[in-house]
Amino acid sequence: MNSFTHGGDSEEFAQKIGCDIDEVIDLSSNINFVRPSIDIDFNRLSISAYPSYTKLYSAIAKRYGVDQESVELFNGGSSAIFSLFRFLNLESCTLYSPAYLEYKKSALLTGCSIDYIDRFSNLDKPVEANSFVIFVNPATPDGKYYNIDSLIKEWIAKECTVLIDESFLDFTPFESAIRYLEAYDKLYILKSMTKFYGSAGIRIGTLLSQSQNISAIKLREPLWKISQFDSAYIMASLRDKTFATRSQEENSKSKEKLLPLLQKSPLIKRIYPSDANFILVQLNSITAQEFQNLLIPFKIMIRDCSNFDGLDSSFARIAIKDMASIETLGDFLCRFQ
Amino acid sequence: MNSFTHGGDSEEFAQKIGCDIDEVIDLSSNINFVRPSIDIDFNRLSISAYPSYTKLYSAIAKRYGVDQESVELFNGGSSAIFSLFRFLNLESCTLYSPAYLEYKKSALLTGCSIDYIDRFSNLDKPVEANSFVIFVNPATPDGKYYNIDSLIKEWIAKECTVLIDESFLDFTPFESAIRYLEAYDKLYILKSMTKFYGSAGIRIGTLLSQSQNISAIKLREPLWKISQFDSAYIMASLRDKTFATRSQEENSKSKEKLLPLLQKSPLIKRIYPSDANFILVQLNSITAQEFQNLLIPFKIMIRDCSNFDGLDSSFARIAIKDMASIETLGDFLCRFQ
Repeated sequence: MNSFTHGGDSEEFAQKIGCDIDEVIDLSSNINFVRPSIDIDFNRLSISAYPSYTKLYSAIAKRYGVDQESVELFNGGSSAIFSLFRFLNLESCTLYSPAYLEYKKSALLTGCSIDYIDRFSNLDKPVEANSFVIFVNPATPDGKYYNIDSLIKEWIAKECTVLIDESFLDFTPFESAIRYLEAYDKLYILKSMTKFYGSAGIRIGTLLSQSQNISAIKLREPLWKISQFDSAYIMASLRDKTFATRSQEENSKSKEKLLPLLQKSPLIKRIYPSDANFILVQLNSITAQEFQNLLIPFKIMIRDCSNFDGLDSSFARIAIKDMASIETLGDFLCRFQ
Repeated sequence: MNSFTHGGDSEEFAQKIGCDIDEVIDLSSNINFVRPSIDIDFNRLSISAYPSYTKLYSAIAKRYGVDQESVELFNGGSSAIFSLFRFLNLESCTLYSPAYLEYKKSALLTGCSIDYIDRFSNLDKPVEANSFVIFVNPATPDGKYYNIDSLIKEWIAKECTVLIDESFLDFTPFESAIRYLEAYDKLYILKSMTKFYGSAGIRIGTLLSQSQNISAIKLREPLWKISQFDSAYIMASLRDKTFATRSQEENSKSKEKLLPLLQKSPLIKRIYPSDANFILVQLNSITAQEFQNLLIPFKIMIRDCSNFDGLDSSFARIAIKDMASIETLGDFLCRFQ
């Protein structure tokens, strides 16, 4: 496995196991299985002209309760991360690990050395002064939400540049670090819109910071980064006022179904507490790769987490999906009682 | 006007002149007015999973007659240009001017000094050895196609890195610089798919080069850059086998209608020969801004070209569009006989 391999390639998986892509039960990617109601006809969307993003920026700024001048959009969270690393151009960063792999990749590409802090064993390890701190909250691949009030005080005291990745925060009832934006001029907040809005195929990621930072970033960005289709999709998603509640209810129901299945399975040694739409497990006696192979007859994909820093081949991530998918996973787990 | 202002903001124009966006006749942006027939239902497109680009890369490679390993895709031509400048990280470039403004912007951002060569007056000026040569063919904002056989020999002899921007080549019957790809390892070719396929709202730009260059670029790029919608749109466009012929016929017809109107107008001093879907004119006694103001009652937008290097406020670009739009422009021009 390539050290930066991600979950979610259901096309490749379908080909490998010889089934139709629609038959694959993808528990490897942490995309919301609940989808917003979309009130537009994409076939009638006018896509000939250059896109104007005024309404999109306005809708996203409103969604997060910030000024438009505090928002920059990118064609996905990964693009936002790469751009931010290039913009900051810092010599070293502090990565609370394990974390989304694009951080490590971006740091390596920009020649930024990485100081790892193991969230599981050493959360309170002091950070270097002036470092670029990256904290994913809720975290990946385990989904834990951290109250960062005391951490952020330390980071500010040490004049760190801080990036809080809140791509999964909308799955939780917790408060955003946006509340610190006004007070701290070296704070950046990332929102990958595609996880919560169930649309990895559309590419929009949002970066929030004080307006002078956002203006400086904008100067370095190419024109027309976002597809008109994607812009329309996100604006329609934001118009669905019942979506957040529906998403919360259906994800909770599925999680309540999934957890006992995992708890009673002898294949699973440890379940990590999660506030997000995925569960990290440590397996008993088998590797994630072996677990994945056993799941092939059930056409289920899970995420082998062995390429996350601090984790080994015994870790796998299972996404919370619809009841039918969880029942199929349950059928599989029953065979190994 | 901002020095990097582009044409095509019909939303802002409509607001400014107080009309509906659909009423604007946009002759400022050089997007094909002929559109491919699209055989997919966008409302039924599955966008929940992370996109796989295998089929898209394969279709684009086939379209240009190259291996998939010679192709990298970006969310638009501008993104491709920015990425290439960053990847090459060269100290100086030679820009055949006037040219698309994103080149100047990218050079400035990456600290790359620019040696300008005026295409109109000094095409044969020798380039510096080892420079990064940028040549747009057909050129913007005038649309002239250059036979670059002798130029490319000089660039290769001087071991220059060469970028040929062929975003408008599909509007012409001429041959691509792809024929030099195999022989020269420092050649890059850019194709902005959105001009010819009439879809500025979808964001796909293609960069072609030898596979070792493309592999090295890919390593520096974020994941999942292209919207699933956009990928589906381009693949459907490429399936329309009659599109190229239809586009050529309808653009020729419109151009034949437009040219005499411009030739007999006393407002226009000079018409530049164009092989593409737009015409550069030098105005007589009035500025492009004044010309634009006169056009407001007709809801027509044109492109003020005063921010192109080597051009001044007397230059404007007029895009070739449908017959009705040209007739409206004709009605306007009649008033100034």
